[in-house]
Amino acid sequence: MAHIDISKPILDKNDQLAQSNRELMRKKGIFVLDLMASPGAGKTTTILATIEALKDRYNIAVIEGDIASNVDALKIKAAGIPAIQINTGGLCHLESDMIRSALDQLPLDELDFIIVENVGNLVCTTEFYLGEDAKVMILSVPEGDDKPHKYPSIFQTSKAVIVSKTDTLPVFDFDMERFESTVSALNPKAPIFPISAKSGEGMDEWITWISEQIEAAKHV
Amino acid sequence: MAHIDISKPILDKNDQLAQSNRELMRKKGIFVLDLMASPGAGKTTTILATIEALKDRYNIAVIEGDIASNVDALKIKAAGIPAIQINTGGLCHLESDMIRSALDQLPLDELDFIIVENVGNLVCTTEFYLGEDAKVMILSVPEGDDKPHKYPSIFQTSKAVIVSKTDTLPVFDFDMERFESTVSALNPKAPIFPISAKSGEGMDEWITWISEQIEAAKHV
Repeated sequence: MAHIDISKPILDKNDQLAQSNRELMRKKGIFVLDLMASPGAGKTTTILATIEALKDRYNIAVIEGDIASNVDALKIKAAGIPAIQINTGGLCHLESDMIRSALDQLPLDELDFIIVENVGNLVCTTEFYLGEDAKVMILSVPEGDDKPHKYPSIFQTSKAVIVSKTDTLPVFDFDMERFESTVSALNPKAPIFPISAKSGEGMDEWITWISEQIEAAKHV
Repeated sequence: MAHIDISKPILDKNDQLAQSNRELMRKKGIFVLDLMASPGAGKTTTILATIEALKDRYNIAVIEGDIASNVDALKIKAAGIPAIQINTGGLCHLESDMIRSALDQLPLDELDFIIVENVGNLVCTTEFYLGEDAKVMILSVPEGDDKPHKYPSIFQTSKAVIVSKTDTLPVFDFDMERFESTVSALNPKAPIFPISAKSGEGMDEWITWISEQIEAAKHV
């Protein structure tokens, strides 16, 4: 099978605009997180718990990427946080021009931290640089501990890995030690944060780490 | 943003070969199922339970699609069933030429039923016709009942919808009635099969439906 690399010119154009997004964010001192996961892994729930923990210290906004619907943006707005919904209309990932048009609608001078909730997808989302400071992924316990073997790229691209829904560990056959050793082999530097947004377990470690990232972006 | 439809010529080539796959399968009287779901939704577990229920009545083979690794094919082979592993090397879905090269390695004259386990992805997999008789999707309870709003296309493309891991319904906030009514609005004809491969609940209805499909393909 012959492959023609049709993705190349699009990626180049995407990367150029991503770089310009990055420069704008640097100028404004805003830390941008691109959050990736499978559908239903708990992205929105984790974002809501993160907002709850940080909203008194930082001004936060959320950019919601979905194929269709605005249910997630409505949940974020209900928490009193500005949210911009992007509908990709079938595309399985966000691109930098979508992020740019969302940034144009946000009060950038007032913000410290922007969370981008990417489309639910373990594959396409890893390939597009949006101008973020860090990509972080969530794997939920029900998805199983073998996922790093099957989707290595997202684990390699992520600056940190969140394991969500740890309150369901008693119900599922998920070997945390095995998971952590597979992830470490793929990406030795990435910290792993097992959390339960439901019980609050593990949230402190995640919040400490993300706060350090936000602080670092402020003082660049 | 201007969109150039670069996907068109590839899809055409894919569809042509898919049609040829379909004709070959029709000639052999084999029913081909393309099974789609998120990563970790329970595709392999559902396949193993389906094999267990049908292996005395039908000759079955499995084509496993993964970005990387062969862990799923090994599980299927351990159940005594021929399995061909396809590694897409980063591509988020299977294409018809990959299916064709797998078909070339299977004993087609002896088979009644081929299950294709597509890459874990709710988006890309829906767009590629492989020559299958039916696409069926699995949504697992932990993913949440709002997924039809966010990923409508896969619900519209599926001839039937399996809801897996129903044994975890007490742990998750999943409203089955709301889910069924959303799916019915998108795809009124698709039957919905809530199952637990763990407890066996609901498996009979799914097995009855899939057996009818296999029988129908035999007598075309």
